[in-house]
Amino acid sequence: MPGLAKRVFQRMGPHRKAGLPPGTLLHIGEVKAAETRIRIIDYDEKEYRETEVKAIEDCFSYTDESTVTWINIDGLHEPKVIERLGNRLGVHPLVLEDVLHTGQRPKMEDFEGYLFVVFKMLQYDENLNEIIGEQISLIVGPNYVISFQEREGDIFNPIRDRVKNGKGRIRRAGADYLAYALLDTIVDHYFVILEALGEEIEALEEELVAHPTPETLQTIHKLKAEMIFLRKSVWPLREVVNGLERGDSPLIAESTRIYLRDVYDHTIQVIETIETFRESVTGMLDIYLSSISNRMNEVMKVLTIIATIFIPLTFVAGIYGMNFKFMPELEWHWGYPAALGVMFGISIVMFIYFRRKKWL
Amino acid sequence: MPGLAKRVFQRMGPHRKAGLPPGTLLHIGEVKAAETRIRIIDYDEKEYRETEVKAIEDCFSYTDESTVTWINIDGLHEPKVIERLGNRLGVHPLVLEDVLHTGQRPKMEDFEGYLFVVFKMLQYDENLNEIIGEQISLIVGPNYVISFQEREGDIFNPIRDRVKNGKGRIRRAGADYLAYALLDTIVDHYFVILEALGEEIEALEEELVAHPTPETLQTIHKLKAEMIFLRKSVWPLREVVNGLERGDSPLIAESTRIYLRDVYDHTIQVIETIETFRESVTGMLDIYLSSISNRMNEVMKVLTIIATIFIPLTFVAGIYGMNFKFMPELEWHWGYPAALGVMFGISIVMFIYFRRKKWL
Amino acid sequence: MPGLAKRVFQRMGPHRKAGLPPGTLLHIGEVKAAETRIRIIDYDEKEYRETEVKAIEDCFSYTDESTVTWINIDGLHEPKVIERLGNRLGVHPLVLEDVLHTGQRPKMEDFEGYLFVVFKMLQYDENLNEIIGEQISLIVGPNYVISFQEREGDIFNPIRDRVKNGKGRIRRAGADYLAYALLDTIVDHYFVILEALGEEIEALEEELVAHPTPETLQTIHKLKAEMIFLRKSVWPLREVVNGLERGDSPLIAESTRIYLRDVYDHTIQVIETIETFRESVTGMLDIYLSSISNRMNEVMKVLTIIATIFIPLTFVAGIYGMNFKFMPELEWHWGYPAALGVMFGISIVMFIYFRRKKWL
Amino acid sequence: MPGLAKRVFQRMGPHRKAGLPPGTLLHIGEVKAAETRIRIIDYDEKEYRETEVKAIEDCFSYTDESTVTWINIDGLHEPKVIERLGNRLGVHPLVLEDVLHTGQRPKMEDFEGYLFVVFKMLQYDENLNEIIGEQISLIVGPNYVISFQEREGDIFNPIRDRVKNGKGRIRRAGADYLAYALLDTIVDHYFVILEALGEEIEALEEELVAHPTPETLQTIHKLKAEMIFLRKSVWPLREVVNGLERGDSPLIAESTRIYLRDVYDHTIQVIETIETFRESVTGMLDIYLSSISNRMNEVMKVLTIIATIFIPLTFVAGIYGMNFKFMPELEWHWGYPAALGVMFGISIVMFIYFRRKKWL
Amino acid sequence: MPGLAKRVFQRMGPHRKAGLPPGTLLHIGEVKAAETRIRIIDYDEKEYRETEVKAIEDCFSYTDESTVTWINIDGLHEPKVIERLGNRLGVHPLVLEDVLHTGQRPKMEDFEGYLFVVFKMLQYDENLNEIIGEQISLIVGPNYVISFQEREGDIFNPIRDRVKNGKGRIRRAGADYLAYALLDTIVDHYFVILEALGEEIEALEEELVAHPTPETLQTIHKLKAEMIFLRKSVWPLREVVNGLERGDSPLIAESTRIYLRDVYDHTIQVIETIETFRESVTGMLDIYLSSISNRMNEVMKVLTIIATIFIPLTFVAGIYGMNFKFMPELEWHWGYPAALGVMFGISIVMFIYFRRKKWL
Repeated sequence: MPGLAKRVFQRMGPHRKAGLPPGTLLHIGEVKAAETRIRIIDYDEKEYRETEVKAIEDCFSYTDESTVTWINIDGLHEPKVIERLGNRLGVHPLVLEDVLHTGQRPKMEDFEGYLFVVFKMLQYDENLNEIIGEQISLIVGPNYVISFQEREGDIFNPIRDRVKNGKGRIRRAGADYLAYALLDTIVDHYFVILEALGEEIEALEEELVAHPTPETLQTIHKLKAEMIFLRKSVWPLREVVNGLERGDSPLIAESTRIYLRDVYDHTIQVIETIETFRESVTGMLDIYLSSISNRMNEVMKVLTIIATIFIPLTFVAGIYGMNFKFMPELEWHWGYPAALGVMFGISIVMFIYFRRKKWL
Repeated sequence: MPGLAKRVFQRMGPHRKAGLPPGTLLHIGEVKAAETRIRIIDYDEKEYRETEVKAIEDCFSYTDESTVTWINIDGLHEPKVIERLGNRLGVHPLVLEDVLHTGQRPKMEDFEGYLFVVFKMLQYDENLNEIIGEQISLIVGPNYVISFQEREGDIFNPIRDRVKNGKGRIRRAGADYLAYALLDTIVDHYFVILEALGEEIEALEEELVAHPTPETLQTIHKLKAEMIFLRKSVWPLREVVNGLERGDSPLIAESTRIYLRDVYDHTIQVIETIETFRESVTGMLDIYLSSISNRMNEVMKVLTIIATIFIPLTFVAGIYGMNFKFMPELEWHWGYPAALGVMFGISIVMFIYFRRKKWL
Repeated sequence: MPGLAKRVFQRMGPHRKAGLPPGTLLHIGEVKAAETRIRIIDYDEKEYRETEVKAIEDCFSYTDESTVTWINIDGLHEPKVIERLGNRLGVHPLVLEDVLHTGQRPKMEDFEGYLFVVFKMLQYDENLNEIIGEQISLIVGPNYVISFQEREGDIFNPIRDRVKNGKGRIRRAGADYLAYALLDTIVDHYFVILEALGEEIEALEEELVAHPTPETLQTIHKLKAEMIFLRKSVWPLREVVNGLERGDSPLIAESTRIYLRDVYDHTIQVIETIETFRESVTGMLDIYLSSISNRMNEVMKVLTIIATIFIPLTFVAGIYGMNFKFMPELEWHWGYPAALGVMFGISIVMFIYFRRKKWL
Repeated sequence: MPGLAKRVFQRMGPHRKAGLPPGTLLHIGEVKAAETRIRIIDYDEKEYRETEVKAIEDCFSYTDESTVTWINIDGLHEPKVIERLGNRLGVHPLVLEDVLHTGQRPKMEDFEGYLFVVFKMLQYDENLNEIIGEQISLIVGPNYVISFQEREGDIFNPIRDRVKNGKGRIRRAGADYLAYALLDTIVDHYFVILEALGEEIEALEEELVAHPTPETLQTIHKLKAEMIFLRKSVWPLREVVNGLERGDSPLIAESTRIYLRDVYDHTIQVIETIETFRESVTGMLDIYLSSISNRMNEVMKVLTIIATIFIPLTFVAGIYGMNFKFMPELEWHWGYPAALGVMFGISIVMFIYFRRKKWL
Repeated sequence: MPGLAKRVFQRMGPHRKAGLPPGTLLHIGEVKAAETRIRIIDYDEKEYRETEVKAIEDCFSYTDESTVTWINIDGLHEPKVIERLGNRLGVHPLVLEDVLHTGQRPKMEDFEGYLFVVFKMLQYDENLNEIIGEQISLIVGPNYVISFQEREGDIFNPIRDRVKNGKGRIRRAGADYLAYALLDTIVDHYFVILEALGEEIEALEEELVAHPTPETLQTIHKLKAEMIFLRKSVWPLREVVNGLERGDSPLIAESTRIYLRDVYDHTIQVIETIETFRESVTGMLDIYLSSISNRMNEVMKVLTIIATIFIPLTFVAGIYGMNFKFMPELEWHWGYPAALGVMFGISIVMFIYFRRKKWL
């Protein structure tokens, strides 16, 4: 699996420099966004406001109101912004550290007054031909959800539209339902990744049957590494969603838990599909190896049989190439055709023998 | 395992399109039934009524009465029908979504007032020569059972007959016993699948001993994939049945739990048999590979031995084919027969040597 | 593992025909006994009666008395007999079904008023050279034990003798102790099977070292299948015995539980020995495969070396077999011996080289 | 793993003959001691008495006193002795049976008034070059410890000395601390075994790098079997010590539990070391197999290359060995050297080609 | 994995000599420090004192005060020093033994009045090119932390600086937070090790693709052994940190537990990364083996094809080298060129055939 270790290490993100005190806010990750973009959606059943602010202080007023406020922050390269927001809302410094250090594994932590949820958004990069992951963190308070992303993405647009259009349950429900909707969108998106992978596996399966090459082997190993990366990103999510559903946080309404159970089911389905894909890829590896060794064996067998048929013939030719004075056969008029006939006979006999033994 | 990923992905069903709000009712699956067929069986210990209605509203009156009502809906391509039924009975929109999205894994959910059970009916498709699965959902209320199927099937006919003829306990018991009977029928049917698979494995075992071919290998891999698919469909059922048996839902009578324990035992037996089949198939793979490599080795050995015997002989012939002026043996009268004799002797000695070494 | 799937499927027994209502009493299994034989042993500390009855109704009086009654029923092909007994004692129809369907996995079920225990008696069939299993069911009431067997066996004779002779604790203790004694006898008998298997493995180990043949491989695979079958039969017993020992059934006296713990220990020992045997057989497979490939490699190496030594020699002979007009060596008087000498020299050099490289 | 099954079966000991009632006292094991030797050490903080008695009845008076009494019984071939002791102290017959049947797996059982502990003492037999196990049983009462061994050993001598010299905590503490000390000694002794095994593995590692032979393979398999045996003997001890430490028996003082936790830590360390050794041995097997196949491949490659270089040369020689009337080259004066030159050229070209391809 | 067993055994440390009473204080480990160095840092929110004492008695006064005292002891070769400190603070002798015996596995023990924590500091030794571990023990009391190291290291310097400069929360918090900070530093340092390993794996991956050699195989096996060693050192830490976080010790403040949860997350991340590295290394082993066997097969195939093409040609040459009197072809004027042409034709036909079969 060339590159697995490297990719996992890179993508799961670097770690805080040893020696710094905990809670030191430093963005660790690739700086992807040009500037920090702060978008606010504030709504309740009746009203809807959407705005984009420049300074983080501009959001503070929203969180005090009884309406549900969704603050979407794209870009994590300005720790000061995150820090000021965190201080205002009373968020633990370690949480802010985890938001900025984008190498967290998916987790859910229940603090007094808010929930902290980290998970991975996965995307299939067509250029690199591999899955890339991005950390998304949520802080879910009584009437606000703050979402942090490294770079702008359009994956949450349908939710924005649903809120705007007042479609579905979302405008009536609280911040917990909004958090659920975000989580649900991410998990739904995993199926898109799985579909792409599924197609890649299918194509590989056909290639494997039609004309396996050493490149097939490399693709198999690449897929295997992809699967390990995927499993690493999705597996802990199971616990996260379960923790939200079964936890005793008062921030999650009873009616939302049923929806979280639905997300849980989908997560299990994603995990099971990944496992099946892994078994499939492992099976393909076995098939590849046995088909390669089969072909090699076939080649060697045929070649060895050709050699084996000719060696006795050459021997006969060698005999009549000897320079003994007295070799009666050499004098015979029909000696030459007879020798040819004998050779032909030997080869026929050997051919039939090999055929009967099913060697040919 | 060619095609495993594809089949699992296809059969486990597609997922709701990302971005749609949860609870959006859309049938996702292959549209198999020509039209939605709604059959009602309504009974208690004394009475029995069987009817087929066109409009879903016609069932509503039945569910109010104290008699047990079984509503069997074949065909899921009209979400409106499902929705109207769900609304009337107060079923959660996510449940209706799961009924329509036929890619669920087997599960049991306990809602207030009703239980929701999903499982897979398996059938052996003789044409495709593979196992196909169909989702069956049950909504079990206090005095009704609603069963949803994608297409009409005759697997529940014996139960219809038993209800009709008042055979057994079924007419005396409630809706929970009816649900049990449906579940029991499904699990019993798994044994039919297992029997078919068992016969296929047996045939393969004989083929393996008699004359293994590359096709044998493909069949082994196909069976392995079949087993993974089967396990994926049956394994979660264990939890489902256990949840029904040990759960604290008041909808399941104590006397029915003993019957559910029986279904649980059968499920375990099905799972164990699948595991044994898997071990068996894995063992067959090992035997195939070692028998193939054995045969190849035998061929190569014999061929190499033939070559090895002739090479020294050819060398002797080569010596007496040299054109040196002074080679006394060439002048001898018995030189030629002597040379032949020497060659014959060499071959005999080698033959004996190889025999003694057990190489031949 | 040729035949594993078939054997497991056959021996674990067929399943009730799909579609029949639960509790339908039909003997499913091979009809082994000529006729149903009903033997009754009735005892307490003072008295002892042994009798054989023709009609099942003749036992009913015994179960009412305060003495311990052991009803031993050999032969399950008359469902009516079982049914009448079951009805009289108030046994659940599903229990009777399980008694008759001899494909159950070992289990223990705690009903009100009685315990139902199923386990497998194993025997080594010398003719088939394989282990065969037979289902034994026990119904343990407050003062009776009913044991069901498919065919008559003499494995319980020592217990009959102990009861008769009043040897040991058995006459003083109740029905629970009798049930323990039956279970203990079965588990003790497993050690006999293990001893036979152990000897077979030992013989195989010696054969493996002395002269491995393809038959060795087949025996290894047969033993592996045997082990899987054995594990499948014994593994669930662990839970059964544990359930009896730790369960809260009032039918099991505290003093008997210590004895059950002893049986539990033995069951663990049986399971551990099976696991060790499995590891042993797997190790033998590895040794077989590597020794076979080692031998093959040795053969190929020696043969290739022979060929390699002769090919250059033949080349030299070929050179002096050329018909050029002007080849000075051919005219030399000592040309021929010199050529032979050169050949001899080449072969010596190569031989030494190969030796030094440790190739020969 | 030649001999594993045999050794495990032999050493783990035979089982009670099927059919005998439980509690039948019969020594099953190799009779190792010449005669039963009964040594008594009786002490408290102030006093110390050491004596050896002939008849078991002579110990009885000691167990009544408030002093701690250690009765060490070497030799188990006289069941009567064990029985009389057991009866006197009210020990359950099954316990006495387990003492005499030396094939128990390590276990701890909590009876009213005493604890019964079984474990394995391991020793490295230099002659057989394998680890042998001996069963040691302890009965721990309120103020006595009875230890049973099959044959005399000097492993407990340091404890005797510590008691005698009043060194450490042992004279102040009760019977539970004495039992701990015995257990601790056994576990400490495992480290000696591990050290011997570690050295053997090291030697093997060096042999593997320097000059692997088929004997190396056998030693690896032997070590693997040794490891399985070791694990089987030590693994259950973990539970035993944990049971003593966390159990609620009033016989174990709170202050002793801290010491038992220490033994527990050591047991875990032993188990972990065994697991690492196993991984190490498995790794060695892989290295052995790949190095062997590497060497074989190297040999075959070189030999095949030699053959491949000479075959075209021989072909050229064959051409000029043809007897055509009109072959102009044969007439040339420099034909022979030219032919030799051509041959030399061909071999040089091939050599360079193979070199460049990194085949040589 | 050459050397694994040896290294694990050596580094995990030797064990107390069997026979010595528990609590005997003897330093077991390599004596690394020249002399025992005792450094004391004593601080509270306002004050800060740093001093180095010669005699252990000089620390005693510090531990009585209400300030937080950190006693750092480098060098364990003077048991007396440790003993006097332990006695003064009422530390259990077994704890002191564990401090001195540097082969402990990471563990946490909760004693009355203090916590005892053992873990491994890992360092990458550039000279030996392997990871070396050192045991660090902490005794955490209400207002003191005592840390024991075998030799002086500078890993804790940043913490000393943070305390000195009053940076962060550390000066305000108690001894528990200091213990957390030490633990956090160690775990942070693991990431440095992982980074070094990650780079080594990357380099190996590139080497594997570019030009795999037998040395590559050895490096893979070395890395695998490294990984096993690492896992063995880090895995138990998970339980240690969890025990501290979830334990009910009053010594750990509620606010510190959140920080410990952070360390726990990091530990999980370290463990997961190790697991991914292991999978990666195992994958590399597979790739290495299949690429080596691929290359070998390619070589053998090409060589065999060369031989196979020349063998029939040589046979033709052999025919016309026969000395029959009457071979008309030999007399033909164009016989020689015709023979050459036939040979050329044969080789062309074979070449095309092999090409079409994709053998070449």
